[in-house]
Amino acid sequence: MRIGVVAPSCPLNVAAAERVQSLAAQVGANLVIHPQCFLEEGHFAGPDDIRLGALREMLADPEIEAVWFARGGYGSNRIAPALLRDLPEGARWKRVVGYSDGGFLLAALHKAGLAVAHGPMVQDVLREDGDQAVLRTLRWLAKNDFDGLEPDLAGPAFAFNLVVLSSLMGTELEPDFSGAELLIEEVDEELYRIDRFLFHVSSQPGFAKLRQLRLGRCALKANDRPFGAELEAVVRHWCERSGVAYGGRADIGHDALNRVVPFPLRNRGASLS
Amino acid sequence: MRIGVVAPSCPLNVAAAERVQSLAAQVGANLVIHPQCFLEEGHFAGPDDIRLGALREMLADPEIEAVWFARGGYGSNRIAPALLRDLPEGARWKRVVGYSDGGFLLAALHKAGLAVAHGPMVQDVLREDGDQAVLRTLRWLAKNDFDGLEPDLAGPAFAFNLVVLSSLMGTELEPDFSGAELLIEEVDEELYRIDRFLFHVSSQPGFAKLRQLRLGRCALKANDRPFGAELEAVVRHWCERSGVAYGGRADIGHDALNRVVPFPLRNRGASLS
Repeated sequence: MRIGVVAPSCPLNVAAAERVQSLAAQVGANLVIHPQCFLEEGHFAGPDDIRLGALREMLADPEIEAVWFARGGYGSNRIAPALLRDLPEGARWKRVVGYSDGGFLLAALHKAGLAVAHGPMVQDVLREDGDQAVLRTLRWLAKNDFDGLEPDLAGPAFAFNLVVLSSLMGTELEPDFSGAELLIEEVDEELYRIDRFLFHVSSQPGFAKLRQLRLGRCALKANDRPFGAELEAVVRHWCERSGVAYGGRADIGHDALNRVVPFPLRNRGASLS
Repeated sequence: MRIGVVAPSCPLNVAAAERVQSLAAQVGANLVIHPQCFLEEGHFAGPDDIRLGALREMLADPEIEAVWFARGGYGSNRIAPALLRDLPEGARWKRVVGYSDGGFLLAALHKAGLAVAHGPMVQDVLREDGDQAVLRTLRWLAKNDFDGLEPDLAGPAFAFNLVVLSSLMGTELEPDFSGAELLIEEVDEELYRIDRFLFHVSSQPGFAKLRQLRLGRCALKANDRPFGAELEAVVRHWCERSGVAYGGRADIGHDALNRVVPFPLRNRGASLS
């Protein structure tokens, strides 16, 4: 199968691209890495219109069966609403994988009816044991192998980086969480910010529709003063206040152990949803 | 007049309290500093219920004409919804001043019909030229002196720290921005985060009701890579995308020059609104 790689946020490392190309061969997949992945314009892998264009190209190409985000960083929110307004023909039958900043696009493409999943990205290969991380995504894409899925999934599930989720709540990208569980993870944020983002997310009307929340790994940044509560107690606090069940820990995060979480299918008729 | 001081977020510095007490005397005001201001519990000036209790006490006390937040930090969001649900008798005729994290409570109390203003807080006296900062608030509270007001106000206006605003959009605290101008300021955030917060705020349905947005001072934190655009260009970008006019700079910020911005009055009948 052919997997298209684009960078909707920040540029891809060349060595990572080469390494993952050879891992893809192991599962019988061929990576088509869009040259846009290596562009640099300020913070981004090229200007908004170029990043959007590359993504649309891959989504439109009938030879490409799945689209894989090169890496996160920041910037996919700047192109997600435009993509949602004008999705290429044929895109709806593709799988799309990414996480972190890519969550904006996962949300947009999920709304549009694509089979999207939170999962390791190309540049994760540079982490220690990164081969195992990217192989989880590659096996799910190329072989429909469920071994890399988050182990406790039961029923419809979403997974988001907490900051990204907070930034898309209330916008046209916000998913319908009715009856689903939500897995969150975070990296490089202080605990007081986690508390503030959870206040924001759990105070939204759409949050209350969740069946439960589960907590992935959060690589916290130290603060100038101790927060006075542990991470899990903070999460329980906001779950209690909003009346959403806390379902324990989840096996996702900004690390090599990060698992695949397919979002529920929609707009495909009852037989597939 | 008697001005009650409470700390809905982080604890107050003792020296700041003493210094401002003497400045208050200059304008004929007497500060009633609640002992809660000096409590410490983890990140906060005491637990949620104690901070909420102190604020409710000051709002209920008929001898207290105005309530002034000691300082920002983080935490007023944790008590704002509860205050909104059960406002003390008599609170509606009081003035309340604060900014930064205090914006959560300004939003809540504005919704409840109080005359609230973004303005310097007690602990700002510790800044260089901090006396002038706190005197701006004190003169507005005690003498109804408009000299400390943001100089270009024309019509209804709101002022918020951008992160705080982002965290309250879509919650029960979100103000009705219809026909108003919005002044924003920020401190210690990277430009890519400013961009992301502006995406979030400007993508909310309530944002489009604004007459215009103005940009206060933003003390930016350096990022590991240059963003590729200047702050003001970023703000113009999101204004254009959301169809809200950009009205130029505003004289507010996390500094000694920070000005007073009274929010529009509501729920008081036509003669006062």
